[in-house]
Amino acid sequence: MTRIAAVRVTPIAFRDPPLLNVQGVHEPWALRSIIEVETQDGRVGLGESYGDLETLGNLERARAGLVGLSPFDLNGLTRVVYEAMGTPDVGAPYPPQGDKARASALAAFEVAFLDLQGQALGLPLYEVLGGKVRDRVDFSAYLFYKFGRHKDDPGYPADDWGEALTHDQMVAQARRMVDTYGFGSLKLKAGVFEPDFEIETLRALRRAFPDAPLRIDPNGGWTVETTRRVLPQLLDGGLLEYLEDPTRTLKEMGEVAAFCPIPLATNMVTIAFGHIPETVRLNAVQVILTDHHYWGGLRATQTLAAIGRTFGLGISMHSNSHMGISLAAMTHVGATIPNLAYACDTHYPWQEDEVIEGGKLTISGGSMAPPEGPGLGVTLDRDALARLHRNYLDCGIRVRDDAAEMRKYRPDWSSRLPRY
Amino acid sequence: MTRIAAVRVTPIAFRDPPLLNVQGVHEPWALRSIIEVETQDGRVGLGESYGDLETLGNLERARAGLVGLSPFDLNGLTRVVYEAMGTPDVGAPYPPQGDKARASALAAFEVAFLDLQGQALGLPLYEVLGGKVRDRVDFSAYLFYKFGRHKDDPGYPADDWGEALTHDQMVAQARRMVDTYGFGSLKLKAGVFEPDFEIETLRALRRAFPDAPLRIDPNGGWTVETTRRVLPQLLDGGLLEYLEDPTRTLKEMGEVAAFCPIPLATNMVTIAFGHIPETVRLNAVQVILTDHHYWGGLRATQTLAAIGRTFGLGISMHSNSHMGISLAAMTHVGATIPNLAYACDTHYPWQEDEVIEGGKLTISGGSMAPPEGPGLGVTLDRDALARLHRNYLDCGIRVRDDAAEMRKYRPDWSSRLPRY
Repeated sequence: MTRIAAVRVTPIAFRDPPLLNVQGVHEPWALRSIIEVETQDGRVGLGESYGDLETLGNLERARAGLVGLSPFDLNGLTRVVYEAMGTPDVGAPYPPQGDKARASALAAFEVAFLDLQGQALGLPLYEVLGGKVRDRVDFSAYLFYKFGRHKDDPGYPADDWGEALTHDQMVAQARRMVDTYGFGSLKLKAGVFEPDFEIETLRALRRAFPDAPLRIDPNGGWTVETTRRVLPQLLDGGLLEYLEDPTRTLKEMGEVAAFCPIPLATNMVTIAFGHIPETVRLNAVQVILTDHHYWGGLRATQTLAAIGRTFGLGISMHSNSHMGISLAAMTHVGATIPNLAYACDTHYPWQEDEVIEGGKLTISGGSMAPPEGPGLGVTLDRDALARLHRNYLDCGIRVRDDAAEMRKYRPDWSSRLPRY
Repeated sequence: MTRIAAVRVTPIAFRDPPLLNVQGVHEPWALRSIIEVETQDGRVGLGESYGDLETLGNLERARAGLVGLSPFDLNGLTRVVYEAMGTPDVGAPYPPQGDKARASALAAFEVAFLDLQGQALGLPLYEVLGGKVRDRVDFSAYLFYKFGRHKDDPGYPADDWGEALTHDQMVAQARRMVDTYGFGSLKLKAGVFEPDFEIETLRALRRAFPDAPLRIDPNGGWTVETTRRVLPQLLDGGLLEYLEDPTRTLKEMGEVAAFCPIPLATNMVTIAFGHIPETVRLNAVQVILTDHHYWGGLRATQTLAAIGRTFGLGISMHSNSHMGISLAAMTHVGATIPNLAYACDTHYPWQEDEVIEGGKLTISGGSMAPPEGPGLGVTLDRDALARLHRNYLDCGIRVRDDAAEMRKYRPDWSSRLPRY
C-alpha cells in the first residue's frame, strides 16, 4: 500500500456576508484551511478545517509526522496528532473538559486519509464508511438576521441577499432559500434580538411555511429564566422541531430540560466525547449536533451516532461557514448514519466562493447526494486555491472576531453571555 | 467493486475436553458454524459463529439476502440481517433487553465481509480496521476444573491434560499453559465448587505464580451475600486483577460494585448495546469483556471500546470454544483497540482440531500477532471442514447442554443459579 509522502495545509479566506449571531456579525472574510495529503503514487486526499491561527499551528505541528503512514492507518494518524498535542496515549480516557483542539486537528487529516482510502479502492467515501442508508442527505435552510452590506468596503460587491432585520425580510430570505434549494426545514440563528422579537419572526415563518419543521438557535444567549418565560410561546402551535442551545452550560441545559417538553439540541455544551457522561447523567440534551470537524473525523462521527443510538440521543449535524470539501464529507458520512433523524445544518448557500473544481456543489429538493467519484468525489481547483489563499494573505484576519466586527456598527456591543 | 455471489454456512463439531463450569461440563463435541461469503470474482471471506440450531436458523434466514451486496456495504448487511430477524429499522433504538441473536447473525457475516475488504485491498484486516496500535495481542491462560475423560466414549482418545479437580492439579494445568504458551495472566473458570475451595485454588495459583495477574469467573454462580462474605479472601494480598460476573443480574452486580473495591468484569449482564445505559446508571461493571460474535462484529467491538473509553469502562475480551477463524478475527480487532487494557480470554489451547489451512495458529509469549495475509490471513482447509462437518452430522448434538452432560456424572446436578 502506498504511503503518505507530503502534507500541505493552505489557509484560505472567502467572501462571507454580514450574518448576525449572538457573538456579533460575520466579518467580510471567513477563514478555513485546505488540507492536502499526497501519497507516494501521486494521489491527493483532501480535508478542510478551521483557518484560525491555533488550528493552523496544531496542523503544522502534526503535519510532518504523517509522512510514511498508510492512509488506512487511522490509529497511526491519531498517535501522531496526539503526540503533537502533547497527549501521546491514544487510549487514555477523554478529558472531561473536552479536547476540541486535538479532535479538530485529527479530523482535518482523517477526512483526507479516508478520501485516499476511497481513491485507492475506486469507491465513493460513503462505501468506505460502511455503505449508504439513504441516497440523499437532507439539509435545512440556515436563516440569519443580516445587514445589507459590510460596514467597511471589503473590496467586493455586496451580496444580493439584502438586509434581514425585520420579520418580513426574514420571510423573504426563507422564501428564496426554499425556492432555490428546496429546503424543507428552517432554522433561525437567534440570540441577536430580544427573544420576543425573534419568536415573532418564528411566527411569521410559521405563517409563511405552515408545514416546515422550525428550529431556533439562541447560541446560549438566554438565561434559564428567560427560556422558561418564552417557552410557552415557543411551544404554541407545535412551532418547534427542537430548541437548540437556549442556555450556555451543560448544567443550565439540564435545568431547562427538566421543564422543556420538546428536545433540546446542542453544538455548544456537548462537543466532545469527554462531555457525554455528564450529558447523559443530567439528561441535559436530547439531540446532539454532530460535526466531524471537532468530534475527531468521520469515523468519530459514526461512533458518536452509535453512542446516540445507544443512549436514545437524537443525531443531527452542525455547520460553520465552509467550502465544498466539508460539504462533501458531511454528505458522505450523513448518508451512512442510520439514526440521522433531522435535516443537517449548512452555511453553504451563504458562500459565493468555492475551492473545488466545477464550482459549487448542488443542493436541490432540500438535499444532496454524496458526490459519486472515488473518495470524497471532489478535487481541488488550484487556481481557486491560489486566489483564496491570496485573499487570506491580504485580508489581515487571522482569528475570527464577530464581536469586534459588530462594534463597527454598534460601538457599545458586548458578546458577553447570556444576553437575555 | 465485485459483489457477493454466494454464501455458505457449514455447521461443524470439534473435539472438546470435559471442562467444568457453572452450567455443568463441556460435551465431547463443541459446535460452531463456518461462514463462507464468496464474491463474483471468486474470493472467499470467512466467518465463524455459534453452531446451535437457533444461530444456524438465523444465518440461513439472512443468507440469500446478502447476494448482490458489496463487501463494503456493512449497512446493507445490517439491513438484510435486521429484516431477516423481523426488525427492519437499522437506526431504531437498541432494545433494552438486548439483541444477542440478531447481533450474532450480523457478526458472523460481518467478519467475512471485512475479510473480503482486506483481500480486495491486499491489506491485513487490522489495517482495514484502522491500523494496529500493538504488534501482538495478549491472551490469558483459561484454567478449568476438568474431568480426566468424558463419561461416554466419544470415539476419540482422551485429551492429555488429565484431571483437574484439586489445587495441585490446577497448578499443574496452569504450569503447562504457561510453559507452552507463555501466558502472563491466569483466569480460573469458577462457580463449580464451593467458593472457599475455589479461592483456595486461587491461593495455590498465587503461590506458584507470584507475579501473574489472576482472575476468577464464577459465571453468576454466587449470591450478593456470598460475594460479600468471600470478598476479603479475594482481596487478600492483591489476589485479583478483576472479579468477573460473581452474580447473575445487572442489579446484583450494581449491589456488589457498591462494596467491591476492585473492578467487576462481565460477559453476562452487559452483552448488548441496549444494556449499556442501565450499566452506566448503576455503575454495575467496570470492565466489559467484548466479544465480536455477539456484539455485532468487529466494527461494533470497536464502537463498544469507544463507548468504554467515553464512560471510563475498561475493555477486555471474552471467548467461547472456537477455531482459528475466530482467533484471527479477535487478534486483528484486538490489535486496533487503543484501550484494550487486559489480556484477552481464549479457549483455543483446549482445541485439538482446526479448520484452517496450516493447522493451529501459534500463541507464544502469552500473545499472538494478527496473521499478516490479506484480510483475516487464514484460509479454509476444505478437507478439515468436511471432516468436522461429518463430526457434526454424526455427533447428534444440536444445542449445547452442559447440564445434561454433567448429569451423566452427577445425576442430581442442577444448573440453577445462583449456586452458592
